[in-house]
Amino acid sequence: MIKARVTVTLKNGVLDPQGKAIEGALGTLGFSGVGAVRQGKVFDIELESADRAKAEAELKSMCEKLLANTVIENYSVTLI
Amino acid sequence: MIKARVTVTLKNGVLDPQGKAIEGALGTLGFSGVGAVRQGKVFDIELESADRAKAEAELKSMCEKLLANTVIENYSVTLI
Repeated sequence: MIKARVTVTLKNGVLDPQGKAIEGALGTLGFSGVGAVRQGKVFDIELESADRAKAEAELKSMCEKLLANTVIENYSVTLI
Repeated sequence: MIKARVTVTLKNGVLDPQGKAIEGALGTLGFSGVGAVRQGKVFDIELESADRAKAEAELKSMCEKLLANTVIENYSVTLI
């Protein structure tokens, strides 16, 4: 069994209102010196396959088709 | 300036309907052999501080107070 972590983040230049809201909230809570905050998603996926190369290719395909909107998001796949 | 990545994931045993939905959708798309899928959040944060130890302590405090619900979520802080 292979465990993988897929991280999906917004591309540079794409507005992130949720990140901006968190930035504001951190300021309100008294955390000073906080620059940009960007929020993304992480998926922990278990695959039954034992072939790491095939698993990685399949995970990239999952990102292209479902997990990430590649117009505005980047993704990275890490096998654990 | 310090860049950090905070990852927030659901604790084991906490139900994750969003992950279950993704699992189902991957099956529908023809990806076989997909076991559990769990979804979490990731925050990319820039801090103006230059003191890495202080920054890490501050990021943990941010997690406790705002970024994670520590009743049901774990968090991890990585300085980049």
